[in-house]
Amino acid sequence: MLRTFEIDPWKIVTHKLDKENKRLQESMTSIGNGYMGMRGMFEEDYSADTHSGIYIGGVWFPDKTVVGWWKNGYPKYFGKVINAVNFDKVNVWLNEEKMDLAKTPIKDFELSLNMKNGILTRKFTVVEKGAEVRFTIRRFVSVAEKELFDVDYQIENLGDQSVSVKIVSEINADVFNEDSNYDEKFWNVKTKDQTPDSGYLIAETKPNNYGTPQFTVGMEMTHKSELKAIEEAVDDQKVANTFSGSLDAQQTTNFEKRVIVVTSRDYDDDATLKAAMQNLSQKLGASNHQKLVDDQTNGWAQRWEKADVQVSGDDAAQQGIRFNLFQLFSTFYGEDKRLNIGPKGFTGEKYGGATYWDTEGFAIPLYLSLADKKVSENLLEYRHNQLAGAFHNAREQGLKGALYPMVTFNGIENHNEWEITFEEIHRNGTIAYAIYNYTRYTGDETYLKTKGIDVLTAISRFWADRVHWSKRKGVYMIHGVTGPNEYENNVNNNWYTNMLAQWTLKYTLESLKKVSSEKLNELDVSAEEKHHWQEIIDKMYLPEDKQLGIFVQNDCFLDKDLKPVTSIPKDQLPINQHWSWDKILRSPYIKQADVLQGIWYFIDRFPEDVKKRNFDFYEPLTVHESSLSASVHAILAADLHYEDKAVEMYERTARLDLDNYNNDTVDGLHITSMTGSWLAIVQGFAGMRVTNNKLSFKPFVPKKWTSYQFRINFRGRLIKVQVDKDGTQISLLKGDPLTVELNQQPLKLKGGD
Amino acid sequence: MLRTFEIDPWKIVTHKLDKENKRLQESMTSIGNGYMGMRGMFEEDYSADTHSGIYIGGVWFPDKTVVGWWKNGYPKYFGKVINAVNFDKVNVWLNEEKMDLAKTPIKDFELSLNMKNGILTRKFTVVEKGAEVRFTIRRFVSVAEKELFDVDYQIENLGDQSVSVKIVSEINADVFNEDSNYDEKFWNVKTKDQTPDSGYLIAETKPNNYGTPQFTVGMEMTHKSELKAIEEAVDDQKVANTFSGSLDAQQTTNFEKRVIVVTSRDYDDDATLKAAMQNLSQKLGASNHQKLVDDQTNGWAQRWEKADVQVSGDDAAQQGIRFNLFQLFSTFYGEDKRLNIGPKGFTGEKYGGATYWDTEGFAIPLYLSLADKKVSENLLEYRHNQLAGAFHNAREQGLKGALYPMVTFNGIENHNEWEITFEEIHRNGTIAYAIYNYTRYTGDETYLKTKGIDVLTAISRFWADRVHWSKRKGVYMIHGVTGPNEYENNVNNNWYTNMLAQWTLKYTLESLKKVSSEKLNELDVSAEEKHHWQEIIDKMYLPEDKQLGIFVQNDCFLDKDLKPVTSIPKDQLPINQHWSWDKILRSPYIKQADVLQGIWYFIDRFPEDVKKRNFDFYEPLTVHESSLSASVHAILAADLHYEDKAVEMYERTARLDLDNYNNDTVDGLHITSMTGSWLAIVQGFAGMRVTNNKLSFKPFVPKKWTSYQFRINFRGRLIKVQVDKDGTQISLLKGDPLTVELNQQPLKLKGGD
Repeated sequence: MLRTFEIDPWKIVTHKLDKENKRLQESMTSIGNGYMGMRGMFEEDYSADTHSGIYIGGVWFPDKTVVGWWKNGYPKYFGKVINAVNFDKVNVWLNEEKMDLAKTPIKDFELSLNMKNGILTRKFTVVEKGAEVRFTIRRFVSVAEKELFDVDYQIENLGDQSVSVKIVSEINADVFNEDSNYDEKFWNVKTKDQTPDSGYLIAETKPNNYGTPQFTVGMEMTHKSELKAIEEAVDDQKVANTFSGSLDAQQTTNFEKRVIVVTSRDYDDDATLKAAMQNLSQKLGASNHQKLVDDQTNGWAQRWEKADVQVSGDDAAQQGIRFNLFQLFSTFYGEDKRLNIGPKGFTGEKYGGATYWDTEGFAIPLYLSLADKKVSENLLEYRHNQLAGAFHNAREQGLKGALYPMVTFNGIENHNEWEITFEEIHRNGTIAYAIYNYTRYTGDETYLKTKGIDVLTAISRFWADRVHWSKRKGVYMIHGVTGPNEYENNVNNNWYTNMLAQWTLKYTLESLKKVSSEKLNELDVSAEEKHHWQEIIDKMYLPEDKQLGIFVQNDCFLDKDLKPVTSIPKDQLPINQHWSWDKILRSPYIKQADVLQGIWYFIDRFPEDVKKRNFDFYEPLTVHESSLSASVHAILAADLHYEDKAVEMYERTARLDLDNYNNDTVDGLHITSMTGSWLAIVQGFAGMRVTNNKLSFKPFVPKKWTSYQFRINFRGRLIKVQVDKDGTQISLLKGDPLTVELNQQPLKLKGGD
Repeated sequence: MLRTFEIDPWKIVTHKLDKENKRLQESMTSIGNGYMGMRGMFEEDYSADTHSGIYIGGVWFPDKTVVGWWKNGYPKYFGKVINAVNFDKVNVWLNEEKMDLAKTPIKDFELSLNMKNGILTRKFTVVEKGAEVRFTIRRFVSVAEKELFDVDYQIENLGDQSVSVKIVSEINADVFNEDSNYDEKFWNVKTKDQTPDSGYLIAETKPNNYGTPQFTVGMEMTHKSELKAIEEAVDDQKVANTFSGSLDAQQTTNFEKRVIVVTSRDYDDDATLKAAMQNLSQKLGASNHQKLVDDQTNGWAQRWEKADVQVSGDDAAQQGIRFNLFQLFSTFYGEDKRLNIGPKGFTGEKYGGATYWDTEGFAIPLYLSLADKKVSENLLEYRHNQLAGAFHNAREQGLKGALYPMVTFNGIENHNEWEITFEEIHRNGTIAYAIYNYTRYTGDETYLKTKGIDVLTAISRFWADRVHWSKRKGVYMIHGVTGPNEYENNVNNNWYTNMLAQWTLKYTLESLKKVSSEKLNELDVSAEEKHHWQEIIDKMYLPEDKQLGIFVQNDCFLDKDLKPVTSIPKDQLPINQHWSWDKILRSPYIKQADVLQGIWYFIDRFPEDVKKRNFDFYEPLTVHESSLSASVHAILAADLHYEDKAVEMYERTARLDLDNYNNDTVDGLHITSMTGSWLAIVQGFAGMRVTNNKLSFKPFVPKKWTSYQFRINFRGRLIKVQVDKDGTQISLLKGDPLTVELNQQPLKLKGGD
């Protein structure tokens, strides 16, 4: 655990330029608007350790990855979001000394991300050779105008002598990904041009051998400055504008850079793209700066209005939940249905910004409550649109039906480890579960009957082909899988996977009864096929240990050396940074909820004693080294009245990045798991459930807190829930009257109450 | 199965230039002398599919291999033998047309590798534009002078008009490996020079980031030709000599290229290396051509004298065993104790020419009988010398003791798939077993007591740390391994691995009783440690199925869908080329002997009914898609009097490459498994065993054969065994009298009988 920022309910703020933990500070001060985003690297060149990263949603590259001895069914490339052409670069010279905060002496440093409006501010005073110059630098990617990036410099000469100032602002295509296998670069400049005080550059991703699309990006920069623009030569890979002048004693100058970013994802050809870029640049370049800032602030205010969670009595907890919602919404706010939610969003390279089952498992439950229903539906449709890819993935394994990818941009499996790719098939179950979850929450079966059923049928066909009949045991089994706990792999009969496969087949059979006859014809599920599915449902092997009264994570699990996590010396945690992969695989330690993930999905269907025995058995073995783990444990702990454990788990999920729990936030933020803190409050502390079309709550207030409140959408209503030590108040802010359940008692909400 | 060469007892010969199967022909006509070797590509440029490869023993490169998401304990590079600087290149122009057998019209083609003397001959007549020119090209790498390569052209003008001839001979450093991840090249030219008719080039492998050595090679070529040497410009990467002239009608000319190849493995610095190269070049360049050929022929004659196996009545079988012995000896004849036996020798890139457990498992049993005892001892010492690397490998996994690598040049694990690297630990058992096997065969305990015990103790310490105690079952287990059957991986309690681990501990405890007190002090095995080992021996879990009366390959194996190989449609074989890795892993099909490998190792310790039940159970599930499989099955089948199965398995191992059984000989020959045909004859058909210091035989003659004979070394004797339908004759050709057992009857050999 390492806390580099101060506790503040609305800000991520520090007064220390922490050179040792620069990357961590950069991850934490990432900003984004769903369309694009960037890490918190400085505009100026920084000669010590730093990780510069700007990413544009949906712009990716198939990286060549020859893994060991390639075998049939291995994916042919690894898809990754690539570092975009860099557009934020601004370098400054004072008295002809280039500013480089790794070396230049400064004082009064402040770095502050205002979560209310998504503006990142950096302040410091350069104190060099008698001069004293104060910088205030503000930047944002606009939530009002998605193509707009703005950075604004206020430069004050605090000294009593004049200071010469030179500023060079660039758009630079000479960028690379740190995670490239062979330091390849991904961009070719197609065209560029510049005037003394503006410039544009259009670049394209390099061709690839896999038939995946190339992307073109266009970026145009304009500037507002009292300094004089002067022409200087630039190299092939960039455009650059130079501004120069001098600041008298006590004088202040302002410098603003605005960049418009467009891509071939939105424009069919280069001419259209270029015209759009120039129109936008002209329009927004002409706009008043304050207007741009106001639009940005209003945009964020509207989001907070619907989604803010207030915690009283614990500012660290308050900051955690706000930071998580802020970063989630910076990554995805549902505007573009071709996009999904990358586990690291726009905050780092690792996990490549691609789509994982995190979306269905963790993000949809949150977006169902915090955003328009359409947003969740779009996320479901994203998978429906990629059915062809999922069929392809199953075919690559010689299997029928659809296998949704572990990692993807285009529906095709984009990850390159076999133990993940075709073993971690439980994801298919969560894709199906999300349809159920959406239908349960919204009460609307339209999606299920029209598109959902296509996905369910295709997944069921996969399961039916993927099981095998064990003659000796007289059961259907699923061998060779990796469960959510990736600290084991290639295991047999993972309870979670088998249970979800069985459930999917059941739910599909039930759902088929509801669809139109046209749809039935189209799906063409024969009586034999249904009979076979039923047979699998009836004879699926679900490993249990009668003596312990638990579900067994997978075959052989109980043969392990089952010592609790508390037996591991503290200096060996997290184990993934201290132990060999061999030791981890053979250990009993669980990276993230596995059996418990399944119990959470159907939390109302398991008797309390079953939940308790499983929680009591698996919790002590769980190291929570996946960011997706703690929230599930928080919810179950709350459900079982283990309040201290629930709060401990909440804190871990809420401040996972802020406190760098797993010592990996340098790589970027854990965006998808940021849903976890919200889930822990709403499904955990407030005990929200939707069962049989009824919304219910069973709230408690953590000891350290005095109260908390949140808002949710539910079937056309906007509902506010306030919980304090004395009780719970549920108000209908919008929509028709509704009866909910509070602590197992019906409560009629009429509005205005 | 694809037979591209004719049946001939002493030759690998074809009269068809098979352009479709050019690579296959090249693999099959590989030549080598232990020091270096090459595939059978043509000297001239060939514009259709071909795979040029020249390899020098012990000259390798650590290839950068970032595999997926790197985890602790993964090896940092993949070691591979690299394609050497090309020295065999000769291009020919006739009437100013460049010869290219992919296009040039020819007749009377013959390609013939004479296994008696290792000379590869190629004959053809170019018929172009009225001219008719006959080529006879002979090449060899000398077994008498290891640094010498010789290629000799006889060019006859069969036509009635004169023909202009131009020849360009090169040494060229511009080569690459086909299996390079990013088409890197591995050689930097350090220095080169040429005269009109000779030239040399010294090149070095590129620097690497892993601290492994760079290698320098020096090559010098001289020529004998009646054509006129003319000077032409050459590029940086090569030296080249050009010869030109004209051939009158019916005239013949000869052209010979001799190349000396030296490396930094034998010379400390560049000056010494260059001087040695030039001395050798001068000496051998001056030698009479016939003398070089005679030395080569004599060298091979001596080898055959000791090792030839004669089969009467089945030329295909005869050709098979000779081809295997020829290629084995071309790869390794024990001269250089720093070298080992790469699974593909000098015949291809795949498996990188590195050292595998094949050596201890399959090659040592053959070399024990066919070469001086010192050769096998050298192979054992190779591992002793690499103990430091084996300690390193164990430490990388957080384990005590020594883990010998799966793939290596230097003792450090050089392979890059975790499921092989740190799961296929059974290899450690075979390293120990080889010490036992050597001691049993030679009857000499000196190596065991001096160096062997170091290795045994280190391996035992590894096993003792690698097992875990299963409290629930009350046994020691080994989880997370891959057995010899690589068609399963990350399994628990592989019977073969557990059995060998238990055996190693036992053998080490027994051997410790025999060593000197100085050695005991050095090894420092405490009483507690020995007690712990004994406890593991006593409580090791060895999976068995009482009902079936078999050893179980590993936990869960019997839960699979156990259908025999015969149920797989023929067009889906080999499964590794038709099935996804997912399907293979979940199938019950066994790539190579696993339980049966263990039974073979201790074939005299298991009762016949146990051997029979296990063979009957596992044989029908075995696809033999590893070249190391069939020989073990052949020996066990012979032991169980399943003669037809034994012969079927013999044929498969003997002609695996000649008939391209596994459809992968294009990649190179299966060198280490070539021992299998010899093992099948000697341990299988002739039933040779060494038990309690006694050599015994129980021979039979396969139905198709009339007789066979072979020779073996045994404890200072040279023994000839002749088996025909009427009986067996065993003769002592050299050495002191000895009593052997023939069909369980003692037989005293006195010599001269």
